[in-house]
Amino acid sequence: MLSFENDYSCGACPDIIARLAETNATQFPGYGSDELCASAKGRIREACGAPDADVWFLVGGTQTNQTVIDSITPQYAGVVAAASGHVNVHEAGAIEATGHKVLTLPHHNGKINADELDRYCATFYGDGNYEHMVFPGSVYISQPTEYGTLYTLAELEAIAETAHKYDMPLFVDGARLGYALTATGNDVTLPDLARIADVFYIGGTKVGALFGEAVVFTNHGAFSGTPKHFLTLIKQHGALLAKGWLLGLQFDTLFTDDLYQRIARNANTAADRIRAALTAKGYTLTFDAPTNQIFITLDQPTRERLEAGVRLGFMEQADDTHTVMRICTSWSTTDEQVDELLALL
Amino acid sequence: MLSFENDYSCGACPDIIARLAETNATQFPGYGSDELCASAKGRIREACGAPDADVWFLVGGTQTNQTVIDSITPQYAGVVAAASGHVNVHEAGAIEATGHKVLTLPHHNGKINADELDRYCATFYGDGNYEHMVFPGSVYISQPTEYGTLYTLAELEAIAETAHKYDMPLFVDGARLGYALTATGNDVTLPDLARIADVFYIGGTKVGALFGEAVVFTNHGAFSGTPKHFLTLIKQHGALLAKGWLLGLQFDTLFTDDLYQRIARNANTAADRIRAALTAKGYTLTFDAPTNQIFITLDQPTRERLEAGVRLGFMEQADDTHTVMRICTSWSTTDEQVDELLALL
Amino acid sequence: MLSFENDYSCGACPDIIARLAETNATQFPGYGSDELCASAKGRIREACGAPDADVWFLVGGTQTNQTVIDSITPQYAGVVAAASGHVNVHEAGAIEATGHKVLTLPHHNGKINADELDRYCATFYGDGNYEHMVFPGSVYISQPTEYGTLYTLAELEAIAETAHKYDMPLFVDGARLGYALTATGNDVTLPDLARIADVFYIGGTKVGALFGEAVVFTNHGAFSGTPKHFLTLIKQHGALLAKGWLLGLQFDTLFTDDLYQRIARNANTAADRIRAALTAKGYTLTFDAPTNQIFITLDQPTRERLEAGVRLGFMEQADDTHTVMRICTSWSTTDEQVDELLALL
Amino acid sequence: MLSFENDYSCGACPDIIARLAETNATQFPGYGSDELCASAKGRIREACGAPDADVWFLVGGTQTNQTVIDSITPQYAGVVAAASGHVNVHEAGAIEATGHKVLTLPHHNGKINADELDRYCATFYGDGNYEHMVFPGSVYISQPTEYGTLYTLAELEAIAETAHKYDMPLFVDGARLGYALTATGNDVTLPDLARIADVFYIGGTKVGALFGEAVVFTNHGAFSGTPKHFLTLIKQHGALLAKGWLLGLQFDTLFTDDLYQRIARNANTAADRIRAALTAKGYTLTFDAPTNQIFITLDQPTRERLEAGVRLGFMEQADDTHTVMRICTSWSTTDEQVDELLALL
Repeated sequence: MLSFENDYSCGACPDIIARLAETNATQFPGYGSDELCASAKGRIREACGAPDADVWFLVGGTQTNQTVIDSITPQYAGVVAAASGHVNVHEAGAIEATGHKVLTLPHHNGKINADELDRYCATFYGDGNYEHMVFPGSVYISQPTEYGTLYTLAELEAIAETAHKYDMPLFVDGARLGYALTATGNDVTLPDLARIADVFYIGGTKVGALFGEAVVFTNHGAFSGTPKHFLTLIKQHGALLAKGWLLGLQFDTLFTDDLYQRIARNANTAADRIRAALTAKGYTLTFDAPTNQIFITLDQPTRERLEAGVRLGFMEQADDTHTVMRICTSWSTTDEQVDELLALL
Repeated sequence: MLSFENDYSCGACPDIIARLAETNATQFPGYGSDELCASAKGRIREACGAPDADVWFLVGGTQTNQTVIDSITPQYAGVVAAASGHVNVHEAGAIEATGHKVLTLPHHNGKINADELDRYCATFYGDGNYEHMVFPGSVYISQPTEYGTLYTLAELEAIAETAHKYDMPLFVDGARLGYALTATGNDVTLPDLARIADVFYIGGTKVGALFGEAVVFTNHGAFSGTPKHFLTLIKQHGALLAKGWLLGLQFDTLFTDDLYQRIARNANTAADRIRAALTAKGYTLTFDAPTNQIFITLDQPTRERLEAGVRLGFMEQADDTHTVMRICTSWSTTDEQVDELLALL
Repeated sequence: MLSFENDYSCGACPDIIARLAETNATQFPGYGSDELCASAKGRIREACGAPDADVWFLVGGTQTNQTVIDSITPQYAGVVAAASGHVNVHEAGAIEATGHKVLTLPHHNGKINADELDRYCATFYGDGNYEHMVFPGSVYISQPTEYGTLYTLAELEAIAETAHKYDMPLFVDGARLGYALTATGNDVTLPDLARIADVFYIGGTKVGALFGEAVVFTNHGAFSGTPKHFLTLIKQHGALLAKGWLLGLQFDTLFTDDLYQRIARNANTAADRIRAALTAKGYTLTFDAPTNQIFITLDQPTRERLEAGVRLGFMEQADDTHTVMRICTSWSTTDEQVDELLALL
Repeated sequence: MLSFENDYSCGACPDIIARLAETNATQFPGYGSDELCASAKGRIREACGAPDADVWFLVGGTQTNQTVIDSITPQYAGVVAAASGHVNVHEAGAIEATGHKVLTLPHHNGKINADELDRYCATFYGDGNYEHMVFPGSVYISQPTEYGTLYTLAELEAIAETAHKYDMPLFVDGARLGYALTATGNDVTLPDLARIADVFYIGGTKVGALFGEAVVFTNHGAFSGTPKHFLTLIKQHGALLAKGWLLGLQFDTLFTDDLYQRIARNANTAADRIRAALTAKGYTLTFDAPTNQIFITLDQPTRERLEAGVRLGFMEQADDTHTVMRICTSWSTTDEQVDELLALL
């Protein structure tokens, strides 16, 4: 059956599969100390315009959030995130399992804003009892957000400035970063992100790789940079891949000839077509979001009719008679799949 | 200066001090294996009408919440609490430090309600992604609440029923339990609590003891009862007092001739007088709360005038020109202190 | 340069690469809920002769040890392991990071024995202070061990019996299990292991897969079986792979037509040839070990001469003038590579 | 019955009890922000000859070890301790519960030595795989040790120098520090300790107080000093006492007119008498230890005879027919009790 259920239901872009086959019999040293990782790191630094950045490869998103947040957040502190943030809702308590509280701000279509962050911190430090409370110690946002929305460049800069004002590093979850970078109307480039964030990751699992996330510590001076002995911390979190070159190979491929953004753009092109059709047919878009995740609020008969022909993602029950469902395109979505979906609407 | 800042600013009721002096040269075995602890446990079981209850003594409130919640909450789960709950706000992340998320419900004058708890759980288990989320694994409430309010018997029973419906033990933080049991209008007795809750604690630190909290596992069958090897768990949490008989001595004294409730009643009598005077003079009571904590919303000039004569507790900034302050009575508040306060109003 | 450095320096057996290519455009549901995982689980249960076994797929060895041990070991307890065990030495504290102590027994060529385990536990429970100590809560061994040695069937049965006597599940780390099952002289089959252990894993990373470990909860009644909500626990440990079918695909391939043992046997055949040559040439084998890891104690000149032509693994400094080095074969070792090595000896 | 079972079986020195009674009705601010704590801290700094030292009060020993070690040991590291160390054996895994491994060195009558510490670290950093292992991140010793033995000044200086060579703070557990400072033959003063250690604690529970341990961060420049937001860390570990002045009061009393060392000396005087008598009567002293703990190896008939008249501590089974038992004196031991014991020998 046709499926727009999520963006991690296919393998990898064919260049990666081909290269896996090619290098299959080659012997590489383990744990990321190989030449493919070295090459991929160089390409990512270049794409980021960040020669001093420090790049690491992990396997999955929750694992990356857990390892990075636990490593950059002081022991007496928690991580500030949107109430809707992945770390707060959909990681089975992986952050708390490392001892840190997730401190939540209200979200606005999935985003936090700098003013509310500032007020949160000002209220915290203004409270006579703050030493008995969990300090705000780092800031987590995702680009795009859980709801497919994007921070503008100005918003990102304001959040980073506020984070730094209260001595917190800004960490950006880029599980779907490719779909942000190439969305219609986006004004945040990879070099912007590397200039603004203290650490972020470039998602591979959902954007063309079999698996893998590239963590970038930007080391631009606002913070202490890569946590000391980060390799050991990765291992301690169970997150060190023995055959690390598999990660290097994938990111080296994705960052050759701009493949990462080219395939990501495909998802947005498909999503733009679908959005246009939905709007034309009078569907209710739940959020005004420009990336590869389209949320629609459906009544029950429409939901049933659609689900007879296509697998969609369930997001939440909106009310007694309506459901929010997700249509998710990806780097691998074909024109034919979009045509087929449009015919169902 | 006169102080109504909190209920832990004096030593202990004189009977305890006398008994400390009397037994000072006696040799006791360590870690709570002494006869004073045994006697105190017996008296508490009797006061609870719960012959099968299992009683343990810890030193402080946060320590007790941390040790109990970590011991009764499954590894894959968090503890459900009011957003205003002590474990969520004022324990410096002690719960998360043991790996458990605090899952919050909105509070209503400090209380959660059974319906919202039920909806929270129903929504959780109705969510197709719930296995990727933190399970609700136990329920934490406090009696009285952070705001001095009380659960009625009916409310407690409804919460316990809902907790059990979703396979969660109900844990009641009784740091100020004496002030709940003896408040005007309260309808929940100690035997009620022991019948309804799966585990609760009887606060000593704030109700007549130098320090100490008596944890009661009620073992009435709904749950597995005392966690296996709980002594070891207490030790592992750094919470085992070497001279355990000091705790036994205090609770044995407090539960002889109903001393605990008699001295607790004193705080409520004082608070009732103060509330009457505040109302008569047109002060704004922030919450309608019957126990020893009185919250008042003050404008700046009034606050300054009062604070010139008495130390009050700061709670929060209500708005740009008003502050919520706390007047806190205790077992040791004297009539003269109340008179002096009333004269200042 | 020729390398016998480790057994995780090549990709995967070609059948796996071919199947990755074939299924690359197929859409699968996420997180292991796909048909490839279902098929692989069925094949593993069959190979184990264990129709009630519960099979799960994780990505790497340390991650698997961390997730399983944290899930099966009581909160008040630690895991008993050989002092030389991987969890004690080479996992960067991943076990302790989840709150559990590794309790060590002396090793005998990498193995613990049932008598010493029994004495350890008897001494523990005989100690009047045992409630202040870390309980032995589970037993961890690896087959083959860190030193390439094997437990015999009788040894395994004795360890399991002792573990059960003290109410501990037995967990067997099988990161290199294929090389154990197919070693010359081995007398422990996969069904034996499934009958004896409470949980074990079948290593893929080092035996023919790109990555992946298959955890088998044997559910034969001695213990409670799969930990409750194990999927959530995997996620909480950052160990849940989004594209779970990649794991299913690999194990489904490895457990079709006995591929797993056939390729594993290749490593042992190569190792047997190398061992024969080493012995013939008078080298000192550090341990009498029958699997794919050969440890040799070398003087400095010999070490330098060998390392000029082949990459070996460093194990430890034996004394001021001797080093223990490792020659490691794998499923992918070719006859030509062995010939080349033999020529260097 | 006569008891020499331990040194925490009586209350507190009478001056403390008297002062508790005196101040019982006085209102103090909470959490250690009171004048008694301030005064006690000043007296301790003075006794240590360390005007820049930072003093904190906690309730018990395991709690103190847990809180301090977790706060000073890097996330990627463990704490080095003697295999016989309290943190390794008798704290129910409290250190591991905070995520840190205890890395053990062999003990020599309870002590580690600088050479073995140096070799341990040199071997660690010389191991090609050290990034996959737990870094030695801090050093824990106790003075006196578990076996009542003492480090000499030269030994302490050598250990500190080695610790600092490998970038580790030295933490000294002084649960019985008074008995070390006043032992016959001891050459380490409190100012010596404050000059050498990075952090240590002065035990109150076992030396004259009802409870309480005074942690001293010496801040002499080798390390970063008091962990940032240490009050919050104390709270997070469940270790912050609401009525903090109770700790201040006790240490203020103990450090007035040298009371701490005067009462500690009493225990050693008693122990010296007992040791002389034991030697004269041909008993086997298990260790050559000069402090208040005397270990004797007894055959079964002698053990039974003694235990008919006096409670002793059990330490361990030496062999099939001998037991190591402990005779423990304390600040509260009377001449009459010693006479009575001597008559039994």
